[in-house]
This record gives sequence, C-alpha cells and structure tokens, in this order.
Amino acid sequence: MDFDTSEFELRTQRAQQMMHAAGFDALFLMSEPEFRYFTGFRSLFWQSPTRPWFVIVPASGKPIAIIPGIGEPLMQQSWIEDIRCWSSPDAFDDGFSLLKSALGEFSRVGVMMGRESQLRMPLNDFQKLRLDLTRTRFADATKLIAELRFVKSEAEIAIMGDICRIACNAFDQAGQLFHIGQPLNEAFRAFKIELLKQGAEEVPYLVGGAGQLGYADVISPPTARPLAQGDVLMLDTGATLKGYFCDFDRNFFLSGGEDGDGAGGTEPDDSVKQAHETLWLATEAGLAAARPGATCADIFIAMRNIIGPDEGNVGRYGHGLGMQLTETPSIIDWDNTVMREGAVMTLEPSMTISGGNMLVHEENIVIRDGAPQLLTRRASRQMLAI
Amino acid sequence: MDFDTSEFELRTQRAQQMMHAAGFDALFLMSEPEFRYFTGFRSLFWQSPTRPWFVIVPASGKPIAIIPGIGEPLMQQSWIEDIRCWSSPDAFDDGFSLLKSALGEFSRVGVMMGRESQLRMPLNDFQKLRLDLTRTRFADATKLIAELRFVKSEAEIAIMGDICRIACNAFDQAGQLFHIGQPLNEAFRAFKIELLKQGAEEVPYLVGGAGQLGYADVISPPTARPLAQGDVLMLDTGATLKGYFCDFDRNFFLSGGEDGDGAGGTEPDDSVKQAHETLWLATEAGLAAARPGATCADIFIAMRNIIGPDEGNVGRYGHGLGMQLTETPSIIDWDNTVMREGAVMTLEPSMTISGGNMLVHEENIVIRDGAPQLLTRRASRQMLAI
Repeated sequence: MDFDTSEFELRTQRAQQMMHAAGFDALFLMSEPEFRYFTGFRSLFWQSPTRPWFVIVPASGKPIAIIPGIGEPLMQQSWIEDIRCWSSPDAFDDGFSLLKSALGEFSRVGVMMGRESQLRMPLNDFQKLRLDLTRTRFADATKLIAELRFVKSEAEIAIMGDICRIACNAFDQAGQLFHIGQPLNEAFRAFKIELLKQGAEEVPYLVGGAGQLGYADVISPPTARPLAQGDVLMLDTGATLKGYFCDFDRNFFLSGGEDGDGAGGTEPDDSVKQAHETLWLATEAGLAAARPGATCADIFIAMRNIIGPDEGNVGRYGHGLGMQLTETPSIIDWDNTVMREGAVMTLEPSMTISGGNMLVHEENIVIRDGAPQLLTRRASRQMLAI
Repeated sequence: MDFDTSEFELRTQRAQQMMHAAGFDALFLMSEPEFRYFTGFRSLFWQSPTRPWFVIVPASGKPIAIIPGIGEPLMQQSWIEDIRCWSSPDAFDDGFSLLKSALGEFSRVGVMMGRESQLRMPLNDFQKLRLDLTRTRFADATKLIAELRFVKSEAEIAIMGDICRIACNAFDQAGQLFHIGQPLNEAFRAFKIELLKQGAEEVPYLVGGAGQLGYADVISPPTARPLAQGDVLMLDTGATLKGYFCDFDRNFFLSGGEDGDGAGGTEPDDSVKQAHETLWLATEAGLAAARPGATCADIFIAMRNIIGPDEGNVGRYGHGLGMQLTETPSIIDWDNTVMREGAVMTLEPSMTISGGNMLVHEENIVIRDGAPQLLTRRASRQMLAI
C-alpha cells in the first residue's frame, strides 16, 4: 500500500464527520479515485471496463469493499477488513445481490451524481437498486466528496512533489531530447521515455503542439510534422507516481542555435515573446492571489487582469490536482470555492496570439499559510531556447 | 485522423441499419470508445473528467458532435460537419441545453445502460434530460453497440496487428531487459521504455508478477522485490497504437544461466512446467475452437476441457479486444455470443498451481474463415528461460 493505515483512518474520519453533517449514513462509491481514496487499492486494471468495483463508507467503522474476486489478493493487503467478493463477470448478477444486501442496511446513501462525476456501473443496475431498495434513499454526495478530496495530506503532497520534480528533471533534458527536423511524435516519444527514466511510474497524459506562432490546440495527438527552426514546442504532461499526477507544461523555442542552448540562433517573434511574458506575469499574479480564504474566482480575476479579454477555448486558468489529472475546483470566474491550506492546484493561464494560435503556461502549487508552495520549478520568464 | 472517411461512413451505415431494426431513431453516446468510433476524435484529454463529450447518431445522415469548445479545432479535422460547442466548464449548463435541443428531435433514443457500460456524464443531468424531454424515450442500446464494435474492419485489424508485433518485438528483448537482482518495478520500467522504443504510442496497461511458483495475482502494481533465481516473471501489456490495444502476456523463467538464454541455469519446478504446458495446450484447443459460428461458451469449454476444474479468480478465458483493453464478449461458459469473421479476441487461460499461486497465458487472434489469425507471435511451448 502507498500510505500508512493512519492515512486511510483519517480520510474515513473526515468523511464520516462530513456525512454526519450532511445526513448521510453511508457513501456508495464506484469510481477509481474514490475507491482508491478509501481503500488504498491501486491497480491499472481499471483500464478494463468489464467489472464494476464498489466501496461503501458507513457512518462509523471501516469501509466495506464489494469487489470482483480477481481483486481479492490485492485488497487483502489493504486496511479493509470487510471484503465481499463475487466471481465476475457474471451472467446475471455482477455484484448486484451483494450491493443490495449491503446498501439495504442504510437509509440515506450518498452517491456522486453532480459536476465531473460519472456512474461507473451499468445504469440499469443502479436503477434497479433504487427501485428494489424501497427504504433506502440515494442522494447526491458530489460536493461532500469534492470538499473531502480538495485538501491533501502531507503524505499526498510529498508524492506530488516527487512527481513534479521528476517531470522538471525530464524537462531539463529538453536540449538533448528535442531538435529541428525531429517529427513531433518522436519528440513526444523521447520525452515519455525520459519521464520514465527520471522515475515516473506512468505517463497517462502527454499532449502538446508545435508551430511558428504557438499551436492551434493543446489536446490533439502529435503529428509526424518535423520540428522547424522558429517553432514554439510545448509539452504538457500528466505523469504519475503512486497514482498521483503532476500536470504542467513547458514551452521551448527552436532557435536553430548551434550549441543546443539557442546561442546564435533566431529569436522568437515579438508576438510570441509578448504572450509568454504576459502568461508568466499572469502566473505571478495567480501566485500572489492564491492564499487561504481567496476564492477560485479571485485567483481567476487576478490572472485575467494581466491577460485581458481573450477568445481562447480552454475556459479556465487552472484546477485541482491529485489522483486525477484534473480535479475540482476550477479557476474560473463562477467558481467560489475557497482556498484552504493543503489544497493542490494548477495555475494554467492561456492566451490567443496573433494568427489565431495559442500559448499556454502551467505550474503546480500547494496552498499554504502565506505564499503558496511551488511543486514545479518555476518556468523561466523568457522562453527557453534550444 | 486515423482512418479514411469511408471507415466512419461504413460504421455509421452499419449502426443505422441496426438502429432501424431495433427501432431507435438516434443513439446518444458519451464514453470515449463510442465517441471515437463514430467521430474519429482521439485525444488523451479524456484523462480529465471535467468536461462531458457527446455524440448523437441519427437514423440517417452524419453524427452530430456536442462538445466543449476546447475540442473544436481537433473535431474540425474529422469527418463530422455538425459540431455544436459550448464553453466548458460552465457553472450551470455543461452542454445540457445543447443536448436537450438536439435530443428533443428524436422519439426513441438508444443509450448504453447495460453490461460493461458507464454513464460518462453527471447522473443529475441525465435524469433531468429524461424528465424534461417528455416526448423522447431513452432505451438501452448496449447490445447494439457491442454487436457493432465486435467485428473489426481490416483497417482496425491492421493497426492491432502492428501493436501486437511491436509488443512481441519488445518481449523478444527480455534477455537483455530483465535480470536476477533487478527490482520488479525496474523490470516494468525497462519494459515500458522498450515498448515505446519499439513503436508503441502509449502503454496504458502493464501489470504482472514474479515469484518462485508463479504469482499471487495479476493486477497488483509491481513491488521493489528483486528478481531471484528460479522466479517466474510474467508481464501482461496493453500497449496502444492509434488508440488500439494489444493485450497479452509472456512468462519468463529466471534460470540464472550464464549467457542470458538460460543455458546452464536451473530448471523450473515440475509444477510450473506442467502448468505452462497445460495453458499452452488449452490455448491450442481455444485456437482450434475459435471458428465463425462457435460461441464464446464453446471456446471456453474447449479450453476448460484441457485445464480441468480450477479455483482461480479471473473468471474467464479471454475477451474482445480493440479500442479498449477488454471489450465484450467474454470467453466464459454463460456467454453465447457467436464468433464472426473479423472479431478480435484474446485467448487467456489461467490456472492455479501448487502453493496457491497462478500462471496465465495469453494470445490475440482474429476470427477468420477457417483457422483464426494470430496477431501475436505464438508463445513457445516451453517457458522461455533467461
């Protein structure tokens, strides 16, 4: 397991306090991050959609795991004691009877039904549960779970610091990894390998772009277009360690200079230089605003004051970070979530530059008493040339 | 885009024929594989749970994409013409109004609600859609989608052949990659890097185990335990190319022999040898049974006849393969899905060996007229020694 038992006890206690306040006598959870949050069970096997996995957090006592038999040996290594298994996949009853009997004990059960949530079980089975369990009410617990996971423990933050450091070390090799003439997809491959060599366990997310005046979008898979002199190359990575993500990007200018650090090469266009400077300053403003008590909207507005109006399509300037690449809340003008010590956030301003292309910039921080703690090594004010 | 427009036209035509037969005038889809199947839109951005993505397949004409603005540039490269965007995340309306107006045009809409499906949108929004659209009925389309995706096109099979070849080439390097004294997690890291070097685009899935008489389970993350002489090392990989998976494993015996191929080293225990031989023969029986017209149950029984009764916890001897690591159907005694030419399946027998540990064995095949086509290079009958 990735954490001591005390970590899971504390998570469960906090959840139970919040459940008490919200009037839930159980939480019924089935998506990977929540399942792992309470059990510690971490496996890439979630890639397979075949089998559902469930955890029930009662108002007191330890969580109950209701899982396919294939997960029993790993779950037995966890702090969970009440492990109920069935042979999955099953023709007619994929955990349904076990669920029904377990949930029938409770009267008001919290399920995630709101923003950014997904129902990771067949809708038919969920609807049947609701119909069959006439004395059990299911209500939305999305906000409770979001609030619970928003503040990270020091043990979680330590892992996230490690993966941010690993990714920074990989970015430090940019001069050796990327070169003019290299197809963009080969640059991505080289960077993924470097992340693994530096100590990342998985690289579930690597996107980016390259172009003469920024890039058209930041979510497309890489093409085989060779990197050209004068390109801005951006890589945005969500690499993981023990199931925790970093999520940040770096921009590089392919100057064509001779010694790998851009000396003697061309200079970025003024529009690119100016956009990079603006994004760097917007991040400074975000860092200055990111204090306990500030809302997401406060941080957004502080950054937007630097950037000005922009017709970009990203929609926000950052988000929560942890077991998922993006978590709630959003740094956007309508999100009034209040920053608390221990929250881990990305600051991710973006802007459109001349020609319709865009530039992005991202750092990962922990909200602390006073100035936030940077988990990433702050990007240089001038775009790095290679 | 990864395919010609004709591929998407054919998929849509097949879907529309099946919709006609099933009485659906639209399909409403929101999970990554189905979204990609109809649009061609491929992005790692699905790692972020923040934004929902929707595609509607009408009874005639092209699909309609209802997506966050951040996806518009990539979607514009696709064959989709009707692209409706909103600025996401939104405080109150994350695509809901666009969905409501689009789905209100239809009277019987297919949604995936059954086996192996998930609702990748907030349940609250789905329930509100159902309530608001009083003239639109939502019904389960899981079987239609499963049947549609079950048979692969030759273009899809070609990609899957490529990723299987890449992973076979990586396994061929086992003698150079793995050695006694190497921590298991370092063996995993070395193998992931080799997969990328050989041409894999992503390695979303790599699990395995190592132990003196097999391994305790096949879904745990690797520990730092050093590989020891006499260990059986198993790696099971789902690497991808253009978003299509391979999914197979290989077992290696760490003989301690001097020249990297096991010569002069120790021999596996008889129980291990016998289990490997049995699994190899069970796969032969599966290959012989996997013909058009045979059911999953037929293939399962052919393999089970070799293995005999077993108290293992995997639950099945293989499954469909494609855009997901595991797809329907399951090779299990209750699954009566009939094999059809062009279906891509894994054959994955497993068994318990003495001491309670297990051994697994896996190949990837295409159902053809006559004998199936192996996409993997058949594992050797004797466990490879390194």
